[in-house]
Amino acid sequence: MTLDYFALLLASGPEAVKLPLAMLVVFASAKILDELFERFHQPGIVGQILAGVVIGPSVLGWMAPNDFLAALAELGVMFLLFRVGLEVNASDLIKVGPIAAWVAVLGVAVPFVLGWGILRLWGEPQIESIFVGAAMVATSIGITAQVLAAKGLLQERASKIILAAAVIDDVLGLLILALVSSLAKGTVNVLELALTATLAIGFTVIVVKWGTKTMKKVVPRVREQLRGAEAQFAMAMILLFALSVLAVYAGVAAIIGAFLAGMVLAESVGHRVQDLAQGVTEFLVPFFLAGIGLHLSLSALSNWTTVTLAGLVLLAAMFSKFIGCGLGAYRLGWADAARVGVGMIPRGEVGMVVAQIGQSLGVIGEHVYAVVVLMSVATTLVAPPLLKVAFRGLAKPSEAEERFGIG
Amino acid sequence: MTLDYFALLLASGPEAVKLPLAMLVVFASAKILDELFERFHQPGIVGQILAGVVIGPSVLGWMAPNDFLAALAELGVMFLLFRVGLEVNASDLIKVGPIAAWVAVLGVAVPFVLGWGILRLWGEPQIESIFVGAAMVATSIGITAQVLAAKGLLQERASKIILAAAVIDDVLGLLILALVSSLAKGTVNVLELALTATLAIGFTVIVVKWGTKTMKKVVPRVREQLRGAEAQFAMAMILLFALSVLAVYAGVAAIIGAFLAGMVLAESVGHRVQDLAQGVTEFLVPFFLAGIGLHLSLSALSNWTTVTLAGLVLLAAMFSKFIGCGLGAYRLGWADAARVGVGMIPRGEVGMVVAQIGQSLGVIGEHVYAVVVLMSVATTLVAPPLLKVAFRGLAKPSEAEERFGIG
Repeated sequence: MTLDYFALLLASGPEAVKLPLAMLVVFASAKILDELFERFHQPGIVGQILAGVVIGPSVLGWMAPNDFLAALAELGVMFLLFRVGLEVNASDLIKVGPIAAWVAVLGVAVPFVLGWGILRLWGEPQIESIFVGAAMVATSIGITAQVLAAKGLLQERASKIILAAAVIDDVLGLLILALVSSLAKGTVNVLELALTATLAIGFTVIVVKWGTKTMKKVVPRVREQLRGAEAQFAMAMILLFALSVLAVYAGVAAIIGAFLAGMVLAESVGHRVQDLAQGVTEFLVPFFLAGIGLHLSLSALSNWTTVTLAGLVLLAAMFSKFIGCGLGAYRLGWADAARVGVGMIPRGEVGMVVAQIGQSLGVIGEHVYAVVVLMSVATTLVAPPLLKVAFRGLAKPSEAEERFGIG
Repeated sequence: MTLDYFALLLASGPEAVKLPLAMLVVFASAKILDELFERFHQPGIVGQILAGVVIGPSVLGWMAPNDFLAALAELGVMFLLFRVGLEVNASDLIKVGPIAAWVAVLGVAVPFVLGWGILRLWGEPQIESIFVGAAMVATSIGITAQVLAAKGLLQERASKIILAAAVIDDVLGLLILALVSSLAKGTVNVLELALTATLAIGFTVIVVKWGTKTMKKVVPRVREQLRGAEAQFAMAMILLFALSVLAVYAGVAAIIGAFLAGMVLAESVGHRVQDLAQGVTEFLVPFFLAGIGLHLSLSALSNWTTVTLAGLVLLAAMFSKFIGCGLGAYRLGWADAARVGVGMIPRGEVGMVVAQIGQSLGVIGEHVYAVVVLMSVATTLVAPPLLKVAFRGLAKPSEAEERFGIG
């Protein structure tokens, strides 16, 4: 089957074939590259992201990003974080809270200042520079969470700090996005920003503090009373979507709501819910990972000026997070500080969303947009191998096997 | 929270909330009505379809059918049939083949003639009458399969005949659709139709006959060789989508490909794949069921002429399938013949698709379209309680519990 024939099928096959064909192309390419990378002792997650690059506009052109794939990707990262949440106890997160707060604050401040500074020195306008700084702020926790979960490392101290810091980082990132968006529109309403901050922090604190206790009371009753098949799973799904919706209204990302939904259920739902949720996660995560790669457009990086800027921004994005977050966790010793620093590097879909908003507000130009997307994809690609090195010796595949049924 | 406020949120909430909110509204309403119906000893599946009617344009107006929900619904019915396929052995289907062929042929001929006859007597044009006949032909196996699976009845003789007949019925239905579509366009190419028939039958026979044997050789090798986590599940998903794609190109529905993918894997994959696939199925099936209800538009049934025609068509759709399929299976005795007849009644999404094609070709008018949709939804709603009666005494909930993990 030649490539041209295949592209033709995708573009002009009968209507009924489009959905299964799109599912087949994305899922199969992600899983095949996953397998190939594992065979050469490279992280499979990198293979899945690169699958998106390969089938995407940059290389084969079989697939372009579209609304349906974007929705599957978003559901994928929601389930991924829900599944990770099921392995995390709220009390553990509260314990590491103070250090995580330092990690998050320094991990936001250093990248923002560095990103802004580089763009200013490069001669870009003030507001565009501020937007690039904002795009370098938010960590995409999905990638790190997937690596840590697959390697059975979620119970390590560094992993818990990464997860807690990612929640705080997300709140800070969305506040900064709200601030720079109002700057771009020319109207900064301090009262509104303060209200947003209060809502976001209030929602997160309430769920973390009282969610687990509440679910410990509710879930056993549900188990006794409901008659529908797999009622506990249905209830878990409803909580997942409900907290995702509430999170967005409270000014936090939907995936943080999904993570919190998993976490408050961690001590009350049984193995069956974990297995069923694992099925949905396994099915959807390739769409999230390949979806990141799909956005990369190498053609925008055709001139050397842009390539140089991209290299600078990428290096700044990596080192600023590593150093900022590492500094926040330095009290734990260099090994854990390095693990935390590396774990916070990926920007993934979050950086791209900020760049898209900047573009839609007319303050980010085409070449800077391509630079931010490259930064987002590349930070996501470098993190899994770095995590492998940083957590060397701690991996517990047998435990992961037990919990996630890998094998 | 008033209804208006809720509708407003759905229409104008922030962009990031739309996906989780749509998921929440559809999934939660389906599962809540499911639970309510089970509590009053009614089939939960009917509750889930009615949830779509309630949140849809006819009643609350919270949701309208859209591309994303349609895609989730199609994935849902694909996974449902894949999951059912995992419980069915190809050799069993081949054994019941001859009777199933009679069931399918008579179950196609009687509804077609009756549907066409009623519309002609009602004074509708020839081509519109033929289209309504065609819309009454194809059984939506998803509904019956879900009921039989949940009640642990898939191993009954009548269930196997229903599944085998549904596969043949689907091939016949798509051939008839191809024929009437070319009639509507004014060009009937006999050679092309014969080619379509050969391809469809050839594909199905090859997969049923050699698929299981091939997979018995391939799956153990995959188990030994692949390194990725949950590699067996990934391979099952790839086969699911690949056979769905091939099915469409061979002129069969994607869901039949999904069913065949499950069936050829039935004897080789382990429990883990069943559990993970069950997770995806549990997650997606509410979108399939509520999605059927979402299409019902009661406002088109505002005048008595249309309501009378709808009543006539509905009665004809029920009795013609019951009698046609029952006659095909009369050799098995009246009890099994009745079970088969009842199991083939639901038209669900298949009838609606035919009506939509008729509308897009300009041969089905608005009120006849509404009549066909009502027939599709109503046959789907009456089947589960009728199945309950027909299979009384055979239900094995404990077995279903074991296989599907219900409880």
